[in-house]
Amino acid sequence: MLKIVVDAMGGDNAPVEIIKGALQALDVRKNFAVIFTGDGEIIKTELAKYKYDKTRVEVVHCTEVVTNDDVPTSAVRSKRDSSLVVGMRLLKENEEVGGFVSAGSTGAVLTAGVMLIGRIKGVLRPALCPGIPNVRGSRTLLCDCGANAECKPQYLAQFGVMASAYAKAAFGVKNPRVGLLTNGTEEHKGDPLHQEAHQLLKQLNCIDFAGNVEGRDIMYGDVDVAVSDGFSGNIALKSVEGCGKTVAAVLNREFRSSLGSKIAYLFARKPLKKLKGMLDYARLGGSVFLGLKKVVVKSHGSSKAKSICPSVVQAVDAYNNRLVETIADMLAQTDFAGVQDNA
Amino acid sequence: MLKIVVDAMGGDNAPVEIIKGALQALDVRKNFAVIFTGDGEIIKTELAKYKYDKTRVEVVHCTEVVTNDDVPTSAVRSKRDSSLVVGMRLLKENEEVGGFVSAGSTGAVLTAGVMLIGRIKGVLRPALCPGIPNVRGSRTLLCDCGANAECKPQYLAQFGVMASAYAKAAFGVKNPRVGLLTNGTEEHKGDPLHQEAHQLLKQLNCIDFAGNVEGRDIMYGDVDVAVSDGFSGNIALKSVEGCGKTVAAVLNREFRSSLGSKIAYLFARKPLKKLKGMLDYARLGGSVFLGLKKVVVKSHGSSKAKSICPSVVQAVDAYNNRLVETIADMLAQTDFAGVQDNA
Repeated sequence: MLKIVVDAMGGDNAPVEIIKGALQALDVRKNFAVIFTGDGEIIKTELAKYKYDKTRVEVVHCTEVVTNDDVPTSAVRSKRDSSLVVGMRLLKENEEVGGFVSAGSTGAVLTAGVMLIGRIKGVLRPALCPGIPNVRGSRTLLCDCGANAECKPQYLAQFGVMASAYAKAAFGVKNPRVGLLTNGTEEHKGDPLHQEAHQLLKQLNCIDFAGNVEGRDIMYGDVDVAVSDGFSGNIALKSVEGCGKTVAAVLNREFRSSLGSKIAYLFARKPLKKLKGMLDYARLGGSVFLGLKKVVVKSHGSSKAKSICPSVVQAVDAYNNRLVETIADMLAQTDFAGVQDNA
Repeated sequence: MLKIVVDAMGGDNAPVEIIKGALQALDVRKNFAVIFTGDGEIIKTELAKYKYDKTRVEVVHCTEVVTNDDVPTSAVRSKRDSSLVVGMRLLKENEEVGGFVSAGSTGAVLTAGVMLIGRIKGVLRPALCPGIPNVRGSRTLLCDCGANAECKPQYLAQFGVMASAYAKAAFGVKNPRVGLLTNGTEEHKGDPLHQEAHQLLKQLNCIDFAGNVEGRDIMYGDVDVAVSDGFSGNIALKSVEGCGKTVAAVLNREFRSSLGSKIAYLFARKPLKKLKGMLDYARLGGSVFLGLKKVVVKSHGSSKAKSICPSVVQAVDAYNNRLVETIADMLAQTDFAGVQDNA
């Protein structure tokens, strides 16, 4: 049976919410088991609170935890008995293990992924790729959104290929439309990095390149993938997140401002819940770390059960839908000779 | 009397909405007059539809229009009888004229501003600075958001000073908190450009530097100014815009989806209007082009009357509150010797 490792100690709400969410995922997908890494005693105490199929849960005890204060590279090297490193090793060494989920330090998860799991052949830089809810009711994949603050044009071209493979494999999008996130739609827009990336993306036969897109197209446009450098992609992701939080805060405030508005809320609850649900992208799970030899999902540091659950489901689905193989195939098909020359 | 020039021919909805909005502004502020530049006959036909104080409106006829298809520098040079160039010349040459408003091509407005009006002494690069509504019910100034796709650290440091001066002069913020927009709050975050800019901003005594901020802090944080390079600032601005449009679209859809939800809307109308009003930042007016010797406001290309009106009011207020002098004073106080060395 497929196994997914879950870092029980990573994130602001570990281990309580992590364990709760992973157990919820067992009900959503039936064909897999969970391995928790972390302090065995704490995990078992927590597990004792729930009813679940014991044949589908394992615990691997370890004594250390990587925190946000750790320097990623040295933590991955020195904290060899941490829930993160032990989990990644299980992913690497165990054929049955198909994915790894952590809400721990982003830097440490990325570093451990690259150092311990390694990149798919030909991948220049792995990239973080979350899904952002869009007006069409589906998701726009934003790649990269934080793994690579500094990029070369060739990296951006590959992000387009990898995220396109992800859209196909994980979400069944037949012919994903790929846009390049810049400061204007005209071809000449952007800095030299994005101008060169535009030219490279245009040459790739394996993707459907829609040209430059703007920030507003992430949620309001019609692309399935928005390619960006990790710096501005991160800013875009968090700008949208802040807007969503602001909308939720304003709605809460306004609908509690008077007795009349409280009554109004009772009537308007259903459409408002739809809006809040749409904006709440915790439900879409975490960011997949594209380009590694196995499936790694980075869940938000503040993840609660309701976002750990879809992150685990995401890992199961990505494995079952052959995400890694799809990326490898698309990269192999692509003539990256010229692209890689300057990398 | 103070005069504000309005480019009657610039923007998707010119001249109808431009003229309508500028006339509305005459009711909001009493101490100024409007000069419309553009096709005199068209403008007069349009004006004939309204009742307004004729002593407060002038028309300066000109025969050309700069469009989005024009190359900015050559258009500014060759279309000398365009509503844009004639307007800028009035601003430059006429003591009584305190500001210029256009919804025309951003590139052309910026180019004309720099070429015809010129920079305040010491300004390295003028920058576009819109206000984005925030959760506190005020606005966060985002500077630069598109004038400079490529920046040096020194430019970013100056954007912090100029936007801080703007917050003080135009909005009465006593001690504006200035954040640097990056991909994480820790000091070392970002690419070398932003790391260096961070160090420069930290050294400036004339601003209250709050350190790095993230995309979510634009709307949900507690800074008055977010400093950014024009590339990622533009992406942030438009990402927020797209999120707002998506929220409005989802609300429209959901509250029209059934008879029940249509009735619910009647009850929930007031709080929902508050939300829509908050997100609709047309009401905040356009982007001020900071760093020029006179006040230039760039209104959104798709501006209708409801955003032209506040853009004109913005120009009046910026002039009356001595925006240009405040920027010049703050820059003069600042020891930019080291800062400018490498520029």
